[in-house]
Formats: sequence, structure tokens, C-alpha cells
Amino acid sequence: MTITALAGGVGGSKLLVGLQNALVPGELTAVVNTADDATMYGVHVSPDVDIVTYWLCGLADTERGWGLRDDTFNVVAGFARLGQEVWFSLGDADLATCLFRTQRMADGVSLSAVTDEVRRALGVETRIMPMSDDAVRTRVVTEDGRTLEFQEYFVKEHQEPAVKEVRFAGIGDAKPAPGVIEAIRDADRVILCPSNPVVSLGPILMLSGVRDALREHNDVIAVSPIVRGRAVKGPADKMLHVLGAEVSASGVAGLYRDFCTTFVVDETDIEEAALIEQLGMKTVALDTIMRDLPASDRLARSLLEL
Amino acid sequence: MTITALAGGVGGSKLLVGLQNALVPGELTAVVNTADDATMYGVHVSPDVDIVTYWLCGLADTERGWGLRDDTFNVVAGFARLGQEVWFSLGDADLATCLFRTQRMADGVSLSAVTDEVRRALGVETRIMPMSDDAVRTRVVTEDGRTLEFQEYFVKEHQEPAVKEVRFAGIGDAKPAPGVIEAIRDADRVILCPSNPVVSLGPILMLSGVRDALREHNDVIAVSPIVRGRAVKGPADKMLHVLGAEVSASGVAGLYRDFCTTFVVDETDIEEAALIEQLGMKTVALDTIMRDLPASDRLARSLLEL
Repeated sequence: MTITALAGGVGGSKLLVGLQNALVPGELTAVVNTADDATMYGVHVSPDVDIVTYWLCGLADTERGWGLRDDTFNVVAGFARLGQEVWFSLGDADLATCLFRTQRMADGVSLSAVTDEVRRALGVETRIMPMSDDAVRTRVVTEDGRTLEFQEYFVKEHQEPAVKEVRFAGIGDAKPAPGVIEAIRDADRVILCPSNPVVSLGPILMLSGVRDALREHNDVIAVSPIVRGRAVKGPADKMLHVLGAEVSASGVAGLYRDFCTTFVVDETDIEEAALIEQLGMKTVALDTIMRDLPASDRLARSLLEL
Repeated sequence: MTITALAGGVGGSKLLVGLQNALVPGELTAVVNTADDATMYGVHVSPDVDIVTYWLCGLADTERGWGLRDDTFNVVAGFARLGQEVWFSLGDADLATCLFRTQRMADGVSLSAVTDEVRRALGVETRIMPMSDDAVRTRVVTEDGRTLEFQEYFVKEHQEPAVKEVRFAGIGDAKPAPGVIEAIRDADRVILCPSNPVVSLGPILMLSGVRDALREHNDVIAVSPIVRGRAVKGPADKMLHVLGAEVSASGVAGLYRDFCTTFVVDETDIEEAALIEQLGMKTVALDTIMRDLPASDRLARSLLEL
């Protein structure tokens, strides 16, 4: 069964690991958000793409969520010693990936091609596609009137400022990366991981042709990233209002109602099922909290059995 | 007493540390070779400039000679994991310096300006000037007919191939960095460190105006890098023939005869003194082997007392 999964960072990675474990090599494709990419310390960081890659090759620091296990942080410490601001933490081996990407892209290689080089070098059998080879950059407009780069909001300001608006610079001109539309269209099933609907899946869905391809697909499952009215991880619950959505599983379901055929809520949110069914989607309640790898495996297998 | 010292890597650094210890802050200026600069892992490495800077700030790995004490090597390990060739070792904090330099230069800052930023950030009171802001690149032509980049010869091939010729790409168009000529002209005394006469001091001396400024100076001391017919460190003894020089203290003295007023040989080479005096230089025999920091201090004080 071929699966194409749309994903952001940690929540997406956990489900992708479960799906990869449950499927035959080659059956899984991940389309990953790149709108939180940035240039840090002169290198192109692609946080979601790297998190997904590291989780899928088994080298991720699963405690921290991002970066590589047993990494050191001496490049960033070196920058600090040179008097530079270092609010963005980046491990040394992790930086090697970013530096390699930066070099390859300076040589004219596309982000999707270098992403494929990295995942192959690390032995990942799942295809990993950045959503676009074109630069899309998330900007967060705060209630106090500032426009922050996404990593400034997310890392430097710890997701604390109240969010008024989220913009995606470049989204109008960005094309899906080569193969993204086909990966959606040709998959037996498309799965939207429990990633942030605003800043992770949002930009993927805004790319021209993506939403149309999903609408034309007859098997699209989305897993709610909101459980008991809270984001399982990250700031989704502080952002959903910018899309006019309620902070609830059904609020998220409403965002996907035009293409989602099955919506998965956490079993603790089963009382929302009837409401979501009214939006025209089949609704299933599962244990969606991926507290460890066996839990990811169980959720993945359940999604494949639907 | 103001001193301007011309230097390469480790041998130069050891003497510079002694000179810095003996002088008042601000009295010492180092003009450092940049012809062995290269791009590695996408960053601008400037080995001699960084070695000098790290020794002068007290952070150098003095056992290894280059790089920073207690550094890790996870960026390079990360590159290896991505299937890349990694014959050039570079520590993580050391790479931070290179990455910072690369970024600043991409922003239009000159090599000499960023070198000054780095040494100030690291608390070095000695002025450190790269010999030029223009790219000069040493190429080694081997007896077996290959043309190697300097770091390929020096690091990858361990200085093993027989050297037929040494070229300095860009040397014809390169100007001394701002302040270099003045630093030579205005110093009370100029000291040529016991650095490689071919690939370290050679390119500095070939920059337009440098040799003339030295000829016009009446107090130029050179310390022999050759002791008992061998290079104290590095491949100088395998290279001197390309300049037509004998591998001896007097062979090196001959290369500097047009500007050097005092030549310092190691005390074990005292029998060469008469020969060197015949070249028209005062000759002094000292213990030039800087086996530890006290030895560097002693040599530096002796040079200042001449």
C-alpha cells in the first residue's frame, strides 16, 4: 500500500517512523514543510526536513525532538566566543548537514535533490520531499505589532508573543517540488500527520495544485494535532485562531473538510466525533499520543488498517 | 619598541607568543601568510591566520599545533557520514571561526577586517594582519607531474610527493593588506619568524612593495627555520631547492641577503656564522628551538635585546 504523508517536524516524524516500520521499503513518501527554513550562522537550516530525516534513519535525539543523538554544540559555542548572538541552537553534526546542503545549493543543486542525497547517505528508504524548491518563509505578526521570522518567534521568543497573523513570504510564486503532486495523486492513501495546521501543513496546502490534488483523492486521512483542546506539541493551539478555527479536533477538521475523507481524533476526544461527521468526514477515534516508538507503531498500523 | 613580525603557522606562532609576552600591548604586529588559505566544507579556512590567533589568545592546541584546545570534530564526522571526503581535519569551534569569516566576507567585509574582528573578540592585543585581502593560492607541482593545491600536498598527501615547483596563483595581482607596508616601514624592528621560506614567508615577500620596504629598513632580523640541515617543523627542507637554496641556515640567509641586517642561526649551527657574515649580515647564534613557552620567551627576549 503506497502512502504519501504530509508532515512538519516532531509529531510528523513520530508517525512517519511508525509508517516506515509498518510498510515495505519504497511504499512511503514524506512531503515536508520548508516554510520554517532559515539561514543561521551562514548555513541553510531546514528544520522539519532534517528532523524527519534524522528520525527516519534512527539517529534523532528523540528526547529533545530535533537534532542528532550525542551531538556536540561547539560551532555555536565558537560563535558565542566570537561575540555573536547564538539564540538558535544547532548541533555540530547537525550543522554538517546544513553546511552540506548550503554548499550543494550554492553549486546549483535543488533543495529536493540535496534532501534526497542526504536521506540516501543516511540509509533512509522513505522518500523525503521538501514541499518546494522555492523559498517560502513563515513570518509571524504579533499582537504587539512586530513581524518576526518564524525561528525568531519559535526559538528566540519561545512562542510567547500573542500571534495576530501568519504570513508565508514567497508562497504565491512557489511551486511544489518535483514529484510532490504525483506523490499525492498516485498514493493509495494520503495521511496528514498530526502537525501544526497553521505553520507546518498550512504552507504545504497553500502550494498551487496541492489542495486540488487532495480534493481529487478519495482516501485522505488526517490525524488531529489537537487533543482535549491543546496542541500535543508546539504552538498550534496559540495559532489556530488566525485561520478562524476553534482550538479543538473539530476545529482542525473544519480546515480540512474540503478534501479529508477520514478524520482521526484522539480517543479522549470521542465526543467530538458526531460534530466532525456532520462536516462530511468519516471520524475514527484512536490513541494518537505517540509517547514512545511502540505507540507510533500502533497508531501507524491502525491508520493503515482503516 | 615596536616590532612587526612576518609569520607562517606554528613556528611563527611560538615566536609571536614570546614576543607578545615581552612587549607592551600594541607594540607587536604580525603579518601572516594567507597563501595556504582554502575553501573546505564550504568555509574559508585561513590556517596560518587562525593558528597565530589561537596561539596568541592562549586557546591553541599547542600539542597538535593547529586548532583549538578541547575541540570536537563532529562537523567533519557529519560530512563523512554523508559520504563526503574528509581528509582535511577541522575542529568544530575552529570551524565556527571559518564560518564566521565566510559569512562576513560574503557580506563584503575584507579578510583583514574580519581577522581583526576575530582577534579582538578573542582578546588578542597583538595586531594580526593577513598578508593580503586578495586571494593568493599556493600550488605545488610534484616531480611526478601533478599540480596540487597546497592543502592537498600538505595534509592529504602528507608532504610526501617530491616537489618540483611551487606556484602562487594570484600573487601578481595581489596587494598587501591595508597597513602591511606601513607596519613594516614604521616598526623599530622587523623580525622574520623561523617559518617556511618557500610557502610561508615566500608569498609575503613576493607581494608588491614588501621586499622594497624591507630593503629600506635598517633593522631586519631573520631567524633560521633550518637547524643542522633540517627543518625544525614542516616541509621547508623538502622545498628549499625550488628557490635554488641549500638546505642550511646559510642557504636561507642567502634568500634574505638583500634586506636582512641580522641573521639568527641556532647555536648548534654556529660554524655557519662566518659564511653568513660573508653575505653581509651580522650573524648571531641563539637557542632557537622553541620546545616550550619558556623557550619561546627566552628567544623572543634575546631577539629584542639584539
